[in-house]
Amino acid sequence: MRVAILAHEQFPDRAKTAVGVLRYGDDEVAAVLDRTHAGERVRDHVPDVQDAPIVGGIDDVDEPIDALLIGIAPIGGGFDETWRPDVRGALERGCDVVAGLHYFLADDDEFARLADEHGCELRDLRRPPEDLTVSDGTASEVDADVVLTVGTDCSSGKMTTTFELAAAARERGVDAGVVPTGQTGIVVEDYGIAVDRVISDFAAGATERMVEERAADYDVLFVEGQGAVGHPAYSGVTTSILHGAMPDRLVLCHVAGREAVHGYEQTPIPPPSDYAALYESLADPVAPAEVVAGALDTHHLDDDAAGAAVEAYGDALDAPATDPVRFDAAEILPAALGEE
Amino acid sequence: MRVAILAHEQFPDRAKTAVGVLRYGDDEVAAVLDRTHAGERVRDHVPDVQDAPIVGGIDDVDEPIDALLIGIAPIGGGFDETWRPDVRGALERGCDVVAGLHYFLADDDEFARLADEHGCELRDLRRPPEDLTVSDGTASEVDADVVLTVGTDCSSGKMTTTFELAAAARERGVDAGVVPTGQTGIVVEDYGIAVDRVISDFAAGATERMVEERAADYDVLFVEGQGAVGHPAYSGVTTSILHGAMPDRLVLCHVAGREAVHGYEQTPIPPPSDYAALYESLADPVAPAEVVAGALDTHHLDDDAAGAAVEAYGDALDAPATDPVRFDAAEILPAALGEE
Repeated sequence: MRVAILAHEQFPDRAKTAVGVLRYGDDEVAAVLDRTHAGERVRDHVPDVQDAPIVGGIDDVDEPIDALLIGIAPIGGGFDETWRPDVRGALERGCDVVAGLHYFLADDDEFARLADEHGCELRDLRRPPEDLTVSDGTASEVDADVVLTVGTDCSSGKMTTTFELAAAARERGVDAGVVPTGQTGIVVEDYGIAVDRVISDFAAGATERMVEERAADYDVLFVEGQGAVGHPAYSGVTTSILHGAMPDRLVLCHVAGREAVHGYEQTPIPPPSDYAALYESLADPVAPAEVVAGALDTHHLDDDAAGAAVEAYGDALDAPATDPVRFDAAEILPAALGEE
Repeated sequence: MRVAILAHEQFPDRAKTAVGVLRYGDDEVAAVLDRTHAGERVRDHVPDVQDAPIVGGIDDVDEPIDALLIGIAPIGGGFDETWRPDVRGALERGCDVVAGLHYFLADDDEFARLADEHGCELRDLRRPPEDLTVSDGTASEVDADVVLTVGTDCSSGKMTTTFELAAAARERGVDAGVVPTGQTGIVVEDYGIAVDRVISDFAAGATERMVEERAADYDVLFVEGQGAVGHPAYSGVTTSILHGAMPDRLVLCHVAGREAVHGYEQTPIPPPSDYAALYESLADPVAPAEVVAGALDTHHLDDDAAGAAVEAYGDALDAPATDPVRFDAAEILPAALGEE
């Protein structure tokens, strides 16, 4: 599929979904829409992903495209009315529009009418399936090996680590799939349920359904965790994913130097070994799993400091550790796969 | 308020909400509607609650009433069409109708029209407030003392223990309130949010909002927990309530002799002391709290066996324990209040 990605005024630092698709997606990206960077290129901002021109709006995309992806998510998940001409233009060209907003494009009268007129699809990835239900407690019976990324905070690298581990596994010839549980992963995979958006009674069930579906297609599954079990607001989602997925092993993600929960500075983050023990205690009554590796986000450190931080993190966890972006996820892959 | 309670074909054993209102509610119950027991009385079935006649339908309720409560919840939370004449009849008499179903009465065209015509209200207690959001992590700052009931399983006595502790506290002159998180508690209190029904991202926030609202009105709050942290399906809701409420103390509820999670027989229930330790570990990073007392459901045992089971349970927890229905919640109240 050839796509354009809307990321107005937020590319690249606040355009997590756009960068995720550029880095991990299979789609060919024809252009990124960001009116503040029109005329530049993706490579001017992010060196290690596929390159594409940055343009001011959909009318500046010269190549034919199959879909427009909304690649940013404002706080609250609303629709920014300044994006309307781009969505309208995409639909008038016969392109599908794919979004992971709380606001559903298909419920917008103008977009629904245009999509109908031009025979294209509005795909709201955050809309939960209608038929979700409580979990059966059966994910541990799947045929695939299941590895879950867990974290010490939100935005601590769970999505990134999930995709990096899957890529490293595929490079080694392992038939590896991803179970995405949040917006970016769902856009990248064109599959998934935003678990934080479902009724809390059904959050474990939604995870279980995905694990069971994808286990039919892959030998190894890397499940994207959400939140953190010591997070004052999101720990319920974290727990639902842990118990719904019933993983065989856990990889603990952490941001080097982060000492308190982001946005909840009164809540300190426990030391890594305590945090790992807490995840293991919580997994235990439902489906025992150990933290077998660590993934550390060191992007804000220089190379020397990053190396030292990774070593200290590995020592604290008594397990292999790496920064899967700066260094290589292959370093922790054998541990994640239970080979050591 | 004077009410009638609909409990067709399920009174008393499968009518948890009806029995909860009879036992703990402030409302005067004019009648219970159960067509299979018409002509009998509540006392014929449940000895220790307020008495009322059981009638076959709303037209057999002779006294004037203010409201009809739906006192049963079929699996799935649907509306049983055989109840329609009773709801219709109540609205035509000018009564409000109060329900905690997944199916919202206010969305039913006939009921909405009748309520409008007769100036009465349709109150769907499971409908979450529109403006829920993520928690701020601030519940620990409230002025009130907060005690949360937690459990080793669903239906292990959390709601009952919450109300029994609140009643025992009030008997001692303590200004105690309840924070209900499930349907029955919400009907009894005429207040609350069904936390299992809200978007998982907002479950802790919903709990926090209730604790902060009720803390303004009471010196001590007893918060009703849900599920169990080792439950394969509902542990996310449990965790959200634990971290959203930020309680000062925990009371662990258990059913004597239950060894596996109900409906998930492959999942054993850990020993009480391990279970208490798990709740404490999970509380720790967000708001530390200890299990200070135990509540044991012994309704299926004889008096001797019940006494022995309570003693063994208290020994296992190294804390005061009781069966708050068979014996007396006052036995564990000092511990729950942090007095010992």
